[in-house]
Amino acid sequence: MDMQLPLLDRLFAAGLLIDTGVDGLYGRSGAFEDVITRFEAVIDSLGGVDKPEAIRFPPGMNRAHFEGSGYMKSFPQLAGTIHSFCGCELDHVSLLTCMEEGKDWTGQQQATDIVLTPAACYPLYPTIAKRGALPAGGGLFDLQSYCFRHEPSKEPTRMQLFRMREYVRMGKPTDVVAFRQDWMERGTKLMESVGLPVEIDVANDPFFGRAGKMYKNNQRNQNLKFELLIPVNANAGPTACMSFNYHQDHFGKTWGLTTEDGETAHTACVGFGLERIALALFKHHGLDVNEWPAHVRQTLWG
Amino acid sequence: MDMQLPLLDRLFAAGLLIDTGVDGLYGRSGAFEDVITRFEAVIDSLGGVDKPEAIRFPPGMNRAHFEGSGYMKSFPQLAGTIHSFCGCELDHVSLLTCMEEGKDWTGQQQATDIVLTPAACYPLYPTIAKRGALPAGGGLFDLQSYCFRHEPSKEPTRMQLFRMREYVRMGKPTDVVAFRQDWMERGTKLMESVGLPVEIDVANDPFFGRAGKMYKNNQRNQNLKFELLIPVNANAGPTACMSFNYHQDHFGKTWGLTTEDGETAHTACVGFGLERIALALFKHHGLDVNEWPAHVRQTLWG
Repeated sequence: MDMQLPLLDRLFAAGLLIDTGVDGLYGRSGAFEDVITRFEAVIDSLGGVDKPEAIRFPPGMNRAHFEGSGYMKSFPQLAGTIHSFCGCELDHVSLLTCMEEGKDWTGQQQATDIVLTPAACYPLYPTIAKRGALPAGGGLFDLQSYCFRHEPSKEPTRMQLFRMREYVRMGKPTDVVAFRQDWMERGTKLMESVGLPVEIDVANDPFFGRAGKMYKNNQRNQNLKFELLIPVNANAGPTACMSFNYHQDHFGKTWGLTTEDGETAHTACVGFGLERIALALFKHHGLDVNEWPAHVRQTLWG
Repeated sequence: MDMQLPLLDRLFAAGLLIDTGVDGLYGRSGAFEDVITRFEAVIDSLGGVDKPEAIRFPPGMNRAHFEGSGYMKSFPQLAGTIHSFCGCELDHVSLLTCMEEGKDWTGQQQATDIVLTPAACYPLYPTIAKRGALPAGGGLFDLQSYCFRHEPSKEPTRMQLFRMREYVRMGKPTDVVAFRQDWMERGTKLMESVGLPVEIDVANDPFFGRAGKMYKNNQRNQNLKFELLIPVNANAGPTACMSFNYHQDHFGKTWGLTTEDGETAHTACVGFGLERIALALFKHHGLDVNEWPAHVRQTLWG
């Protein structure tokens, strides 16, 4: 294969990703999925020892919870709301006429109670708050879901629909910060065990507009978010394949999450961008998993 | 637990499903997910012998492909289009003001190029057509994805976001019909092997409006779709946990799918409603998997 081709084209040609005609929306081959399954098993073997509570939310969340999260303040351009046809038979006739004439038929679609999940942990905070105060020692949760971000791109690392695996810690600030620190070390070792070069840096999130600069400066100055970066795309900087977020009391205050002592809980999350990690593995070790280095195959397939 | 409570409330109380505040949108516990994982492994052991090509699409599909599929003619009320904020900074200020005042802020959201997948196989047909004529013997594909249907309900078997596993056969009419017949027998045996009572009947799809009655009659009179039904909800008829669809040349004509001889390909699909099957298992064998009958545990966990 022509190694000068962009990575996305090589992934299409190898059949690992499947073009759907929309940038950032791809089918995955069985081989691609197997890499993600095996990498998740390695995550399990690291994170399972802490006995997290596993919860799997679907790829959509309660719109009221989304509205309460503050996401539309920071990243309005990335969110996806789900809309449906709520009309009568006559409206349906107009809609079909509109479609036949190739006109925009989506204007009459009405917002449902569901929005696409922007990050795997967003549905978790209101769910756990509803249970009452956290138990002694706080909480630890294991999540994974498809997430949506409206940012069409030909960089395969920037998908519109992708999976995020997360661990979320809730409790006292010291416990939450220690959890994040621990995973920064675990994540680095994990990536080294599959032969990927990493660096960790403060995050560079795409906050919206001029007001967003304030959020970004705050996030960077207070070291609220770190990213584990791996070079994947040739013509861009390294790709954030994990992130380590300390939310302080943001979600605790928003949802009334409290520790057993009645203090506002602090929260942190560690996220794995599963498609990005798979892409990093294909980029560094080649598009044929059978030719990956023996130690990498050993870590993933045992 | 009070067995008189509705199944959904018992599932919430047992922690198997997690209330999100929206009917038909639930979190799943680790135990619930494990049942689905194990059931899928049993499906694999049956369907894997035919060596299908595995493809995994994300829960959204190309809107143009969705429009071409004809879904909006039959089930406009169930579809979900994805909309995003595409405005400038001033628009953002208005949007946030709207949200703060508790007004509807979704009116300015614009349709993206993506809609939620209504059935796991919808993204497949245009994808395979792009490859050119089918190879000798036709094609066989293994799919699974989250699907969306806008039908809020307190029946746990009627979720808005749920997973569908599918096998899809493309080729000559005789091969396609034989595939469907084969899976009607396999499906019946499969459900019996996990201790579930089944019947098979012609389908009863919720086609929209008066014009939809014609589609429904056509579907029933021509035996185009069968369902494998299992009693799950106490106050409703049995639940369709699998379906067996013969599309004749509908998708073949729509997407230009051809056999190696240049004939329009026929297609059929077999779908498993994974959450519905898990719910049937919990309903019939109890909410604690450790107390399920030994032969059921043996089939699922080996």
